[in-house]
Formats: sequence, C-alpha cells, structure tokens
Amino acid sequence: MAISPENEHPVKAFGWAARDSSGHLSPFKFSRRATGEKDVNFKILYCGICHSDLHSAKNEWGITSYPIVPGHEIVGVVTEVGSKVTKFKVGDKVGVGCLVGSCHSCANCKDDLENYCPKMILTYGAKYYDGTTTYGGYSDIMVSDEYFVIKIPDNLPLDGGAPLLCAGITVYSPLKYYGLDKTGMHLGVVGLGGLGHMAVKFAKAMGLKVTVISTSPNKKKEAMEHLGADGFLISRNTEEIQSAMGTMDGIIDTVSAVHALLPLIGLLKTNGKLVIVGAPEKPHELPAMPLLMGRKIVGGSCIGGIKETQEMIDFAAKHNIVADIEVIPMDYVNTAMERLLKADVKYRFVIDIANSLKPF
Amino acid sequence: MAISPENEHPVKAFGWAARDSSGHLSPFKFSRRATGEKDVNFKILYCGICHSDLHSAKNEWGITSYPIVPGHEIVGVVTEVGSKVTKFKVGDKVGVGCLVGSCHSCANCKDDLENYCPKMILTYGAKYYDGTTTYGGYSDIMVSDEYFVIKIPDNLPLDGGAPLLCAGITVYSPLKYYGLDKTGMHLGVVGLGGLGHMAVKFAKAMGLKVTVISTSPNKKKEAMEHLGADGFLISRNTEEIQSAMGTMDGIIDTVSAVHALLPLIGLLKTNGKLVIVGAPEKPHELPAMPLLMGRKIVGGSCIGGIKETQEMIDFAAKHNIVADIEVIPMDYVNTAMERLLKADVKYRFVIDIANSLKPF
Repeated sequence: MAISPENEHPVKAFGWAARDSSGHLSPFKFSRRATGEKDVNFKILYCGICHSDLHSAKNEWGITSYPIVPGHEIVGVVTEVGSKVTKFKVGDKVGVGCLVGSCHSCANCKDDLENYCPKMILTYGAKYYDGTTTYGGYSDIMVSDEYFVIKIPDNLPLDGGAPLLCAGITVYSPLKYYGLDKTGMHLGVVGLGGLGHMAVKFAKAMGLKVTVISTSPNKKKEAMEHLGADGFLISRNTEEIQSAMGTMDGIIDTVSAVHALLPLIGLLKTNGKLVIVGAPEKPHELPAMPLLMGRKIVGGSCIGGIKETQEMIDFAAKHNIVADIEVIPMDYVNTAMERLLKADVKYRFVIDIANSLKPF
Repeated sequence: MAISPENEHPVKAFGWAARDSSGHLSPFKFSRRATGEKDVNFKILYCGICHSDLHSAKNEWGITSYPIVPGHEIVGVVTEVGSKVTKFKVGDKVGVGCLVGSCHSCANCKDDLENYCPKMILTYGAKYYDGTTTYGGYSDIMVSDEYFVIKIPDNLPLDGGAPLLCAGITVYSPLKYYGLDKTGMHLGVVGLGGLGHMAVKFAKAMGLKVTVISTSPNKKKEAMEHLGADGFLISRNTEEIQSAMGTMDGIIDTVSAVHALLPLIGLLKTNGKLVIVGAPEKPHELPAMPLLMGRKIVGGSCIGGIKETQEMIDFAAKHNIVADIEVIPMDYVNTAMERLLKADVKYRFVIDIANSLKPF
C-alpha cells in the first residue's frame, strides 16, 4: 500500500488541497522532505492564485492526480538551508515559481531554459525525483533545491511580488526573447488580466508605447489612467482596429480562449511578432497570406528559465513593479476561484498564507 | 474610350495572354513604354512558369483584370539603356522578378524590403505609375526601371537561372531572415516542387542537414540521390514523423494547400521556426500549446527585396545552383499549365521565349 501524503516525508506540513474535479479546496495534511544538502526550506508568507491553479484543481487539462495542492507564485522567508547551499541564508526573502526540478543536462537546461526541459518538474502535481508528488504554495512551508529558488530583493513587497513568479515571467520572457523590449517600440497587449496588466507594466518600464486591446470598453479608464497604457482598442470595434493597422512591433496575447488572430496580425508592422502566452484547448485559425505579406510571425512562450526569472525579479524591484493584487485569507480561496472564473479581480488574488492558514 | 493595349505605348510588343478565367493563354499584341532615362530594355530569352501565373490567369485570387500576360521569372539580354542608367549596359544578362516598382520612401523600402512596400508594383497584372497595366515575361521584350533589374552573373545558365527570380528568392530569403542558414543546422523542407527543390539546394549549399517531408514516397530516391537531401519523411507516416520529433531547427513549408501544422511544429526543436511560404485560401489550424511549450514560431515570408535577390543570384552563381527545369516552347504553355496543376513537372517549366515565341 502506498504511504499516505502525511507520512511519506519526515516534515509535517499542511495546506489546502483539491480532492476531485469539483476543484473545491479544503484543509489537507501532508509532509515535506527534510532539508537536503542543496535544499532551501522556507516559511511561506504569500502565494498568488494563477489561473493554472484553477485548471489543475478541476482537472481541466486531464492530467491532475488528486489530492493536489496548487500554488506556484510562492514567497516566504528562509528558515533552514542545507550544508551545500551557497546562495541563500536563514532570513532571506525568497520565492519559488512554476519549477522545482529539471535535468540540468539537456540543450535547454544548458541554455538556461529549464522551463523547456523535457524533464522539468512542476511545483505542484508532478512527480519529484524521489517518486513523491510535488505540492504547491497553498501551504505553510516549502522546500526546494536552491537552484530553483529566486532571491527577492529587499525593496520588493512580498505580496505584490508573488505573482511575478508566474504572471510576471510569463510576459517578461517573451518581451526579451522576441526583441520587444526596445525603447520607442509599440506593443499591443491583448487581454487585461493577471498576465496582461503585468505586460503593460513591464513594457512601460522598458520604454515602450503600449496599447491595450480588450473586449471590455470599461477597462479603458483603468488601462490608461491607472496602468499607464498609451492607447486602448476595443477588439470588436472594427473602426478602432482598422485605424491602428500596421502600427505595432509586437503583441503579447494573453487570452486563453480561441479568438480571431487575423485582426491582431493586421495590427502588426512588417516583421511584427504576435506572441501567444495563453493556450486554448482548441486550435486557433491562422490565415497564411497576412503572415506572408508582412513577414510576420505567431510565436509562443511559456514562463521562463530560472536565470531569467531572477533577472525579471531584479528588474521589477529596480522599477518598482509589482502586481495589482487583492489579498485574501486562505479560507476565501474557493470564493476567489469562483470570482477568478468571472475575471472578477484586479488583477491577481494573493493568499495571505502566514496570517490565515490555520493548522487543524 | 480607353486606349487599347496595342496602342497605349510607342513600342510594339507581343506575348501570350489569358483573356478570361478559363486561364487559356493565346497570342496577344500589346505595347511597352519607350526606354526612360532610368529604364533598362531587354530581349527576353527565358521565362519560368510560376504557380502564381496559373492562379492569376484563372483569377483564382479574384483580383485579375484581363487580358493578363503572366511571367515574373524573366531573363534576357539588354538591348537599350536610358541615359541615367548606371548599373547596366547593352549586352548584359539581366533578370526581372516579381516586382517592377515600389515607393522608395516607406520604412520597408528604406530597409531594402520593397517586396513588403504597400505600394509595390507587381511585374504583371498591376497598375504602373503611368496608369497602364504591367505585362509579364510571356512576351518578347521587357522594360524596367534599373532599380528592379537583377544582374545575372556570366556563369549562371539563363534557362535554369530564371526560376531563381521567384522560386529561388522565395526560399532563400526566409533561410536568411529566420537565421536558418548556419552550417550544421537541421532544416525540414515540406513539399518537393518548384520551391521545395530550390530550398534543398540552397540549404545544402549553406551547409545544412536537410530532410524533405513529402506526401509522396516515390520522391524519396530523387530527393536523396539527385538533390542531395540527407533525410526523407513521409508526412502521413506517423512512425517516421514521431522518430524525428524535436530534431529540426527550422522548416520551410512550401505547400499551398491547407495541411496539418501540428506534426511540423512537433518536428521542431525548442525555439524552432516553421516558415510558411505557401498561402492556402482557407486558414490553417494552429494549436497554441505546442508553440508555447517549445517557444516555437510560425512565420511567413514572401519573395524578397531587390538587394537580397541580387545577393541570392550571386550566391547561386557561386555555388552552381540552378532550378531543375523542363524547357518548353511558347505554344506548349497551356499543356504545361495543365501538367503544373497535377504537379507533373521536375521542377519548373521554363519557356524558351527567344526560340519559340512567334509574332503573328
């Protein structure tokens, strides 16, 4: 018989888990491994709620094994380090994002792209090297190989900083990789949610002109006055879209439902880049001629490597970039998930783990 | 009443034109402008038959106005140059590809990308600056602003060299732009027709490993033994495709019918590039997740600028690259078009204009 999650490791831990595809989260006792020689152990203070958490809790991708403890925007304070840990000490503010393992030997790992390593290990719901399940940040403590631990600069608020570890790097990485980080460039951002609002902030800090493209006219004031976007297009307003044709160097498309790519491709200049960071289950329609006629590309991007995540966090600290968040107590998480489904949050829920996660 | 094509310009010309959407070509009298001060006039010796000629002759893109004289893979010998022409002299071997005009002032023109200029003028079936229609290379003589005339090196055969002006640059340009020109890279070439066989030749000359991906098993011997491809995959053979997953740096996809992009995206390594140079009428299906998970792109490319076309021709001459052709007489053109529809040609028809186009 398999050992129960509570007893497979020596260190007692607790959090909230989903037990079935209802996705309903409830208190859960489990265990974490003892701090290994290269491990960093930390007390979790905050954990962001990513849309992936909802997908996973409800098994919407069909790969969830229960119980699952979500959470991969995890920040806290180091309580113990292994004997061979060199980068961290007790008391450091740290974070863990989507990854806690990779092979360290493939071409991607050698290129600091652990996020594309075929053997990368996700922070929750995955099998760790020892065969046990990984549990995420909706929990009291975390242990991770220091390789996958990010140093949080002192001036970066931990609550608003937590979402940088997934939402932040997801949009920062493609801005860099696709060369959409040059002062004066014009960037479109499709969808103004957790990812989109981070894209606006990073792009503005890089000196870009940013136009938000959204289905919701009522986001215009917020986008321009609060987030500092330079323009706003309602995606279903053909005239508005038409007037902006051929003006954008790139677009970060954060929408994870199927939607028309044709008008977005039209918004691009010659050599323009439409970068998709959301993944609907069904394929998009891709018209070929508009790609050919302007040598345009549609590209993908998925989070980022560890080195780049640290670079992003340091950039955020330098430019005072944090997510706009609504801090919630742990026992509000199921309500938060319902509101997330309705996009009823500006722009990220962050669970105040330290002050609200109660042992039982 | 509009002036007839025969009388709108002072110089008598003749060729073969389609008069309606049957696409049937027949002898046609028209006229060309007198050689302007920046113009190069040349006697046409050969003209390649591009699939676009067929689409245009039959008005399959819905933009054809008749009569239309196709042909944009035109080579010949200079017979007259204008007073301000600096690059060419009488007797030079020259070519004209898909373009005879552009604005020379937009961002694309300034970047030597006249092919993406919104005001670019196609070699046939377009309106020239003076309001008259442009006529292509299925004709006896050609006149063009020297800017759009390509110098053909002496050692490049004119018949096999003609298709370089469209088929050649169409595949050469994306190999360069998308960085798929580095020795040792692994390139996939989808479709082994006029474009595909040129892609194999250019990529091999650049030192790449080339794998042809085709629906036709009977093209394997030809691809590997004659064209020098290193590998061959039958696109419907799931096992073969599976065995090559994640091995390619890029793919040049020359197929102009809708087909599955998913297996092609799967063949790419992380950061791999699928470049589409064929444009079906209906959109492709684009699955997002496979793009995200390997930071892959689907990009387009459409012919090339004048500077790059000259570079391509010089590269071809240096590396003895010409198209594999079947030379035909002018009066065989309608049969050739029928065979082209069935892909019954290795790999490009070239019309021997000088020896077979008869005045009437």
